[in-house]
Amino acid sequence: MPNPSPNPFFDVRMRGFPARTEVAVAVELIRKRVGPLGPEAVELDAAAGHVLATAVTATVPVPHFDRAAFDGYALRADETFGAGPNNPLTLRIVGEAMPGRPFARPIGPGEAVRIMTGSPVPAGADAVLPAESAEEAGDLVKVVEPVVPGKNVGRTGEDVPAGSTVLPAGRVLRPQDLGLLSSIGVGRADVVRRPRVAILITGDEILPPGSKPVGYRIVDSNSVVLRALVRRDGGEVPPTKHLPDRPDAIREAMTAGGWDVLLVSGGTSVGREDHAPRLVAELGELPIHGMALRPASPAGIGFIGGRPVFLLPGNPVSCLCAYDLFAGRAVRLLGGRSDDLPYRTAEHPVAEKIVSAVGRVDYVRVRITPGGVEPIAVSGASILSTTVIADGFVLVPRDREGYEPGERVTVYRYDE
Amino acid sequence: MPNPSPNPFFDVRMRGFPARTEVAVAVELIRKRVGPLGPEAVELDAAAGHVLATAVTATVPVPHFDRAAFDGYALRADETFGAGPNNPLTLRIVGEAMPGRPFARPIGPGEAVRIMTGSPVPAGADAVLPAESAEEAGDLVKVVEPVVPGKNVGRTGEDVPAGSTVLPAGRVLRPQDLGLLSSIGVGRADVVRRPRVAILITGDEILPPGSKPVGYRIVDSNSVVLRALVRRDGGEVPPTKHLPDRPDAIREAMTAGGWDVLLVSGGTSVGREDHAPRLVAELGELPIHGMALRPASPAGIGFIGGRPVFLLPGNPVSCLCAYDLFAGRAVRLLGGRSDDLPYRTAEHPVAEKIVSAVGRVDYVRVRITPGGVEPIAVSGASILSTTVIADGFVLVPRDREGYEPGERVTVYRYDE
Repeated sequence: MPNPSPNPFFDVRMRGFPARTEVAVAVELIRKRVGPLGPEAVELDAAAGHVLATAVTATVPVPHFDRAAFDGYALRADETFGAGPNNPLTLRIVGEAMPGRPFARPIGPGEAVRIMTGSPVPAGADAVLPAESAEEAGDLVKVVEPVVPGKNVGRTGEDVPAGSTVLPAGRVLRPQDLGLLSSIGVGRADVVRRPRVAILITGDEILPPGSKPVGYRIVDSNSVVLRALVRRDGGEVPPTKHLPDRPDAIREAMTAGGWDVLLVSGGTSVGREDHAPRLVAELGELPIHGMALRPASPAGIGFIGGRPVFLLPGNPVSCLCAYDLFAGRAVRLLGGRSDDLPYRTAEHPVAEKIVSAVGRVDYVRVRITPGGVEPIAVSGASILSTTVIADGFVLVPRDREGYEPGERVTVYRYDE
Repeated sequence: MPNPSPNPFFDVRMRGFPARTEVAVAVELIRKRVGPLGPEAVELDAAAGHVLATAVTATVPVPHFDRAAFDGYALRADETFGAGPNNPLTLRIVGEAMPGRPFARPIGPGEAVRIMTGSPVPAGADAVLPAESAEEAGDLVKVVEPVVPGKNVGRTGEDVPAGSTVLPAGRVLRPQDLGLLSSIGVGRADVVRRPRVAILITGDEILPPGSKPVGYRIVDSNSVVLRALVRRDGGEVPPTKHLPDRPDAIREAMTAGGWDVLLVSGGTSVGREDHAPRLVAELGELPIHGMALRPASPAGIGFIGGRPVFLLPGNPVSCLCAYDLFAGRAVRLLGGRSDDLPYRTAEHPVAEKIVSAVGRVDYVRVRITPGGVEPIAVSGASILSTTVIADGFVLVPRDREGYEPGERVTVYRYDE
């Protein structure tokens, strides 16, 4: 696919961004350039939450024979007309129908067959009298109420008619969908392949997760957050690569392949060691670098070999924000999902002024209190704890200076 | 723990239930008898969605040194007072501070240090001038605006003060929580152990998932649905056992151990081959069998060795309903979670009368249309496809005959 906006690369190191791209423009680019991956077959046991790649049509009906809907007695309904407590009908029990073990012959007049739920209804019978409504003695059963034809009989195909489409393409598979597939003899589902999302963490000072912070080195938190977010969005994550601030090492990792999406955290801004933007432009294209967004303004979106690459700032709040607003959309779209933000939303009044500036989108962490929505006072992009104590976030659109107390806002809730 | 309601076992086979337990009573029993399992340590990479067993306190501050919040120049703020476009201040760049590689000595008067975001701020410096606001030439940098002390410096502990509690016990771990744990040097989280939920599917006629329906045998769908539901609720599922309707085989599987919750589907009602209720009563206790609920009235709740056992009807809608209303609560409570139904809810007006009967709870599959909520006409417990085409379900309380058009009801949505 040709590059729709082949901006010549501008090296921003130590100079600042020439212009910042609007969030909506970046989202449009993602929607334009990213679509669902091809199908793959997965076992039903692993298919929950996957997205169906092709519609499923039943080749067999469910049930594939007339079956009893209750434990009781299979009988001929017309014989019971007029039966009542003062006029009981007595039928002879000539055998049993068990699940998987039908009664071998058609039943005749005056006959009944003891039948269990799910068992094939014998030929000749057309209704089932529930055990609770009958009285059995020896090989006789007493019927004290009429039974209408078809009563308590599940007809062939009543659940799924043969030839019917049971699930459409694009369906996010629910537990009961998998059950239905199993019941029509489908053991594997053709689902959209999960995108493989590689994560590169750059920075000489970064220690891998599980380390203790020592000296002036800090422990990587971004990969830990990103891996959980990618999995939430239906992606797979190969092992994280931790790289020094060396262009050759970063280039090698970028060209290693084996990914559908590449996330690069750290070294994405205008510092002298921020090599990633130049490398993406060199290896592919970097149509967007620098966003009209706070935090995460140094974020970038590029493509290498046509596959999306997201430059995520090293500051942890910026990294989370840029993932959710941009990279997560690509992961979800590749997996055949909606690119909507995957958070529950709720409308609340603002309790305490939310400050922003016209010309940029603001990602504001908020608490939801009985009085309404309060922004978290500490707003630094480096303060991950704000996203931990927050109940969620508000996105202030670019054309607003913020929200005044009493205005209603949409909160994206961090909890599930 | 003593059995709070040691009903003597009543063999209901071919006789019907003597009395049906109210749903609310069954839920109370579960809440009374089931609580969180003990803790286990899991790697951060596998901890998302787990429940924290104990609060976490930071033993180190984040950051653990004063750091630059921007790429730019570390300087002494007091020297910049009065600087302006017409009165530029020129500082000598005496070195660099990089992430993990501090500038080696304190800076003196007239000096600045080129500094990257996240780098340690050199002694003597107390502010950072962003690169965008400065002009560098040779080893000099021109400052054309005053910088206040502390500007763009992230102080030690500004994110997490040492000794602070960062996450409370009981927290369902979010991606950002894991990042915060990583940043304070915690590589594993102590979480509530996931309950191990064994599934027994009984029935001579049942073929395992992946089979084609043949003759009068049908393919198991319940285990497929249950496995996905248990995982949704944070449980683990060992391989399903498919058993014939033989008491010895079922008894052996029930006593095999290795589970925290046992789900038995099929053979739970009043049919002659319904052995499970008697076996649970024999091996432990069966305080509840038969529910004032449609569908799923043959459901039962027992305990073997003090661990909960759920008898789930073989009819697939009943199985789903009884899992969600009873078994799922136990799975969630054992895992330290809320026992609330794990579905999004929404209030909608009723578009088409929802019929129920006083004295039982009704689990009604519904569609949400532009006009409101419509019950799915086919209501049989055996019709799994109703739960596939439904948008969700409504629970009609026992004291209501149903809902009239225009009344508002809560819909539990099947989609995520």
